[in-house]
Amino acid sequence: MAIEPNDDRGAKRRLRLGMVGGGQGAFIGAVHRIAARLDDRYELVAGCFASDPERARASAAELHVPPERAYGDFYEMAQAEAARDDGIDVVSIVTPNHLHFAVAKVFLEAGIHVICDKPLTTSLEDAETLAALVRSSGKLFVLTHNYTGYPLVRHARAMVGAGELGRVRVVQIEYPQDWLTTRLEATGQKQAEWRTDPTRSGPVGCLGDIGTHAFNLMRFVTGLRVEQVLAELTTFVDGRLLDDDAQILMRFEGGARGMLWSSQVAPGNENGLRLRVYGDKAGLDWGQEDPNVLVVSSLGEPPRRLTRGGPGLGDEAARVTRIPPGHPEGYLEGFANLYGDAAERIIATAEGRTPDPATALLPTVDDGVEALRFMGAALTSSRTGGWTAL
Amino acid sequence: MAIEPNDDRGAKRRLRLGMVGGGQGAFIGAVHRIAARLDDRYELVAGCFASDPERARASAAELHVPPERAYGDFYEMAQAEAARDDGIDVVSIVTPNHLHFAVAKVFLEAGIHVICDKPLTTSLEDAETLAALVRSSGKLFVLTHNYTGYPLVRHARAMVGAGELGRVRVVQIEYPQDWLTTRLEATGQKQAEWRTDPTRSGPVGCLGDIGTHAFNLMRFVTGLRVEQVLAELTTFVDGRLLDDDAQILMRFEGGARGMLWSSQVAPGNENGLRLRVYGDKAGLDWGQEDPNVLVVSSLGEPPRRLTRGGPGLGDEAARVTRIPPGHPEGYLEGFANLYGDAAERIIATAEGRTPDPATALLPTVDDGVEALRFMGAALTSSRTGGWTAL
Amino acid sequence: MAIEPNDDRGAKRRLRLGMVGGGQGAFIGAVHRIAARLDDRYELVAGCFASDPERARASAAELHVPPERAYGDFYEMAQAEAARDDGIDVVSIVTPNHLHFAVAKVFLEAGIHVICDKPLTTSLEDAETLAALVRSSGKLFVLTHNYTGYPLVRHARAMVGAGELGRVRVVQIEYPQDWLTTRLEATGQKQAEWRTDPTRSGPVGCLGDIGTHAFNLMRFVTGLRVEQVLAELTTFVDGRLLDDDAQILMRFEGGARGMLWSSQVAPGNENGLRLRVYGDKAGLDWGQEDPNVLVVSSLGEPPRRLTRGGPGLGDEAARVTRIPPGHPEGYLEGFANLYGDAAERIIATAEGRTPDPATALLPTVDDGVEALRFMGAALTSSRTGGWTAL
Amino acid sequence: MAIEPNDDRGAKRRLRLGMVGGGQGAFIGAVHRIAARLDDRYELVAGCFASDPERARASAAELHVPPERAYGDFYEMAQAEAARDDGIDVVSIVTPNHLHFAVAKVFLEAGIHVICDKPLTTSLEDAETLAALVRSSGKLFVLTHNYTGYPLVRHARAMVGAGELGRVRVVQIEYPQDWLTTRLEATGQKQAEWRTDPTRSGPVGCLGDIGTHAFNLMRFVTGLRVEQVLAELTTFVDGRLLDDDAQILMRFEGGARGMLWSSQVAPGNENGLRLRVYGDKAGLDWGQEDPNVLVVSSLGEPPRRLTRGGPGLGDEAARVTRIPPGHPEGYLEGFANLYGDAAERIIATAEGRTPDPATALLPTVDDGVEALRFMGAALTSSRTGGWTAL
Repeated sequence: MAIEPNDDRGAKRRLRLGMVGGGQGAFIGAVHRIAARLDDRYELVAGCFASDPERARASAAELHVPPERAYGDFYEMAQAEAARDDGIDVVSIVTPNHLHFAVAKVFLEAGIHVICDKPLTTSLEDAETLAALVRSSGKLFVLTHNYTGYPLVRHARAMVGAGELGRVRVVQIEYPQDWLTTRLEATGQKQAEWRTDPTRSGPVGCLGDIGTHAFNLMRFVTGLRVEQVLAELTTFVDGRLLDDDAQILMRFEGGARGMLWSSQVAPGNENGLRLRVYGDKAGLDWGQEDPNVLVVSSLGEPPRRLTRGGPGLGDEAARVTRIPPGHPEGYLEGFANLYGDAAERIIATAEGRTPDPATALLPTVDDGVEALRFMGAALTSSRTGGWTAL
Repeated sequence: MAIEPNDDRGAKRRLRLGMVGGGQGAFIGAVHRIAARLDDRYELVAGCFASDPERARASAAELHVPPERAYGDFYEMAQAEAARDDGIDVVSIVTPNHLHFAVAKVFLEAGIHVICDKPLTTSLEDAETLAALVRSSGKLFVLTHNYTGYPLVRHARAMVGAGELGRVRVVQIEYPQDWLTTRLEATGQKQAEWRTDPTRSGPVGCLGDIGTHAFNLMRFVTGLRVEQVLAELTTFVDGRLLDDDAQILMRFEGGARGMLWSSQVAPGNENGLRLRVYGDKAGLDWGQEDPNVLVVSSLGEPPRRLTRGGPGLGDEAARVTRIPPGHPEGYLEGFANLYGDAAERIIATAEGRTPDPATALLPTVDDGVEALRFMGAALTSSRTGGWTAL
Repeated sequence: MAIEPNDDRGAKRRLRLGMVGGGQGAFIGAVHRIAARLDDRYELVAGCFASDPERARASAAELHVPPERAYGDFYEMAQAEAARDDGIDVVSIVTPNHLHFAVAKVFLEAGIHVICDKPLTTSLEDAETLAALVRSSGKLFVLTHNYTGYPLVRHARAMVGAGELGRVRVVQIEYPQDWLTTRLEATGQKQAEWRTDPTRSGPVGCLGDIGTHAFNLMRFVTGLRVEQVLAELTTFVDGRLLDDDAQILMRFEGGARGMLWSSQVAPGNENGLRLRVYGDKAGLDWGQEDPNVLVVSSLGEPPRRLTRGGPGLGDEAARVTRIPPGHPEGYLEGFANLYGDAAERIIATAEGRTPDPATALLPTVDDGVEALRFMGAALTSSRTGGWTAL
Repeated sequence: MAIEPNDDRGAKRRLRLGMVGGGQGAFIGAVHRIAARLDDRYELVAGCFASDPERARASAAELHVPPERAYGDFYEMAQAEAARDDGIDVVSIVTPNHLHFAVAKVFLEAGIHVICDKPLTTSLEDAETLAALVRSSGKLFVLTHNYTGYPLVRHARAMVGAGELGRVRVVQIEYPQDWLTTRLEATGQKQAEWRTDPTRSGPVGCLGDIGTHAFNLMRFVTGLRVEQVLAELTTFVDGRLLDDDAQILMRFEGGARGMLWSSQVAPGNENGLRLRVYGDKAGLDWGQEDPNVLVVSSLGEPPRRLTRGGPGLGDEAARVTRIPPGHPEGYLEGFANLYGDAAERIIATAEGRTPDPATALLPTVDDGVEALRFMGAALTSSRTGGWTAL
């Protein structure tokens, strides 16, 4: 426990949410659903979860979406939902990249707000068409560059904006991973398959998959526009069709210089997105794998280690912070794991079956009794100054 | 993105959840609610959120709990919910410590499963009474020692159990914080007030508030029972009524030795729970502030850095893992922040009011267009070998 | 390279140094000799390097000590050196612990300054006798508690002394190692043998070997006296004669509380001496394995990371700092390794033999040429904006 | 203390060393002298320490170099030393860059071995001339790329050479500093002055000063030749005459790709040389500020943390290792600081003056007595199980 809880996020009206993509076997769809549930401001009520009708229906059932709102076709879904009085307010698009454009277009035209996974589209032409459509529609269009949602990224942006770094000179951004070091796509791994397939990912591979996150993060924090690039895209794995490593020099407006490296063939790197920005007064350093820390170094002073919720942060970070400093966000998941195991035991009991044996790890009343025994013995020992049995 | 998504947690029947405590201004209640929502296996349908009736009702409204199930009295709630066909399956108890016993007793007697925040009770006698009641009731009773829910804690336990450390000799557990370094309870800070008040917290302060987590974590991972303690509980802050620092030596069954330190007056420590266990074959080191890492050192080999979802982990960790390695759990919260901001903009638009200006940071279609421009220029540059304008 | 070199340590008169112990096969003697040479203020001119006369002479020859000043008996050495006009100014005592007392006594009585490895003696009685003798002799007696020599330890002491931490409340000191996890002394390993032998080490094992460093460091930095201890000394390894793990609670004058842990059976720990001190205004954290960093956390501010030579340090640290910030002390050893390899090649050539093949790694003129080619190509590329061949 | 001391470095014949440059106020000369003394294989007997005769003589006196071998001119020194029977075996060149060529040439022509600070020369033409001269002279020429002297760099090279990384694909090397963020050269700081002056440093600034170290380290570890570069050299500080930031893409023989960044305007970076190499089987990561650690990640396994002297290292590292694992090289300097303070006290006493008051921090016999008291009390407490006064 700590100082300033943030307890008022579950309130207010819930929005009706639909989803396109994200059925069984998908990855990012589940992430979007958890994100939507976390603060209790969305209710998932409709979906077109898969192109295969049976998988679409099965996914809907698992997700508590009523059968009549489990669609097999996203065009039909847009029409039907737009026509309902209780139709969805907003749709999440979590399909492979090449479908983003068509789906977004249909829902925007149906007057429905859109939350879309990145990258926007697979061609610049489509992207510009979509941008025009968003403007004319008046609807909200959110691209889930999720790294902009971290409290310390918000703070970093605010710092740069307030001039605390001085004039920005050098930007170093990198995003190495290692999961495509071998030709994983040849093994049938779904995530690898579509991400290395030009027909579904577009003309860039690693650069589009993760380089785009790096680009967006750098833009978000520094606010600087890139004027020119010098790029070296390489495909290291034999037989792969798209780049798996990108090394880029950048010239920014106003004279700053930068380097961007993204790679999916760098053993030992899980998800190493890291941004460093150097101005003439100070530098900052933030890494996604340790996201609750931002190191700020003002010239002539010792580096300061800012933490989420800790001293020195401002409103930008506070409004996207749920739990006190020192509690990594895994804190919420640790709790959720106990709730999940409890649900399993309760339901299994209700259904007359044996619960998953792993749920036997749940802490229970006996743990509580034992802890009290321990504390009691400690209290006695502290008072008497001698060893005390439990 | 990475290798093995975990996408099937949102399924199956939802349980009906009630809550006692956790109204406006509380901390841990919100955490429990988020945890319950995360995997979509609970629906909050009833609550007694505060002792003050008005605050209880207002909290219920914010939490989408219907007015007729917003109770002002937990006894009444237990009776009423037990009598309903659609009554709650399980209750979460998130009151101050001194109420845990009475509330738990009432709900167990009403035949309702219980999830209770720690510590169990404020006296050993109550704890033992409750333990007996749990056994006779046949109901599930879960004490939310949340640190047992981390994937790498599960893995650590499995390792010790499998003998990978050999015979355990030394256990070092510590849990320093700094938020009570000054007399915060005298300023009206609610969290500090009840945690330093013997009538609400029981006879131990820091030891009960966080030492009990340390104790539980150590027990969970090592499985070893403590036989004897030698404790030094100290109150450093003038005027404080309970200990704010605890230093304890422990003798375990089988001859292992250990030290436990918990403190709330150690400047620079936010939530520094850390466990180290040393056996005659290997040692392990896990810290809550970097919970996705477990360092394991087998004698005569370089230390290995295990990560959540990474190589070398087993089923115990996998079943409580939602996202790929390298994505800290903040990943989900980052996404949730975007969803939250999107909800604000959509609702504000619908209500004809100006949205919170901070939501202007949402990435939008223009960010997508710009990223595509960047990738296009990079592709061109890589092909031509020259600097390319965006 | 960096900002403020420290270039005036090699100057002034050199002292004539003798050594007792530290012959072939010893460890700490070599460390003392390097330390004495580093700043060029000592010249090793006499020694009694081993009890075995042949080994004593052979060691002397290797160390450039003239045969007539290579003694086989320390008593004889003290007499002879005291009688010479060019006799030693100071003696280094680097024998096993049980000889410290007798050797120190003899040299002090002969009017020679003493530098002695820790621990002082193996009994308190001897220690007190020696202390009295030092006082009556008027000679310098230095006990090489080397951890007090680190720049950031000096700074930490100065900070506490200046009140920057406020009133000290909690002290946490630990010193875990793992090299005695198995019964190494049974394998004939010399260092393990004498350190676990009560006749040579005295009545405590791990506590005397390394716990005494921990104690001294804590005393040096905080200045606080220990009034009472509650200790648990344990021998975990079967057949070992002395403790290999020590866990101690401490009560300090003025009410501070502390814990000391030293262990030689903690797998994964090489030399983990670490000190944390918490006052009512700030806390500090220093670890020997990363000795150039001191983290200071003032209440209500982000932790600051002080570095050797970096911003925020004072004179106490500066006067024991040789190289600029960011250059770990290994910098000097890296240079020394090149000098060592160069010597080997030059001498081998002079002697007409093949040099150690490992010295082929020495960087040479070709590396210089290649680097210039690289820089030239970079300069051209930067001017033309295009890829440039070397 | 730990396991395998390395105690036989001080032996064998000492070489006679001369030095050009490195007088009062210089930096790198002192580093070379310490390196030469560390293993006691060199004796400094001659020098041309400065161009100004008086400073040259004063420096010589401080360094215990006899007046008749304190030269004011390096050409004269080379002739005179070559003519002496006891002339120097080897000369260290530690002048500013623009003099390296002329000095090296003279000494090689005089038949004297050369150890020269980097960079080799300021023009490629001079470098090639020198290379030819080295070959024809048959003399040893060592360029002190000191980072190749670190044990773990040696190990990294051996690993790559043994194919443990597989085929190298990506090389990331960086060397950021911050000491030239402002126009320090305008303040009269000597180190900044000559390093930013084209007439003394040559046509590149930051790239030549530190980029050349980065280049050499990368070449040393990977063995790969650079075939092409694309470079962006920038001068960020107004009025500066040479680059203070260099960003370079590299194409290696065999298809590997790399990025090199060196900067002297990156606030928060002291001396951040860091090398990462990724092959198709494993990756490695080494940083100069934490030089005793090498992280190696084999695909599909948890990263291993190799340490100097620790498990998993081979002969390449062992032969350049002096002290046990866990003891950073600062260990030797800590000892040296005590020896230095002791010398000051002894000499001051002999000279009848008050010693530097800072030397009062030296640990003395009283510290030894107190530690024994502490250990005795701990022993008693452990036997009785109760609190024991000292």
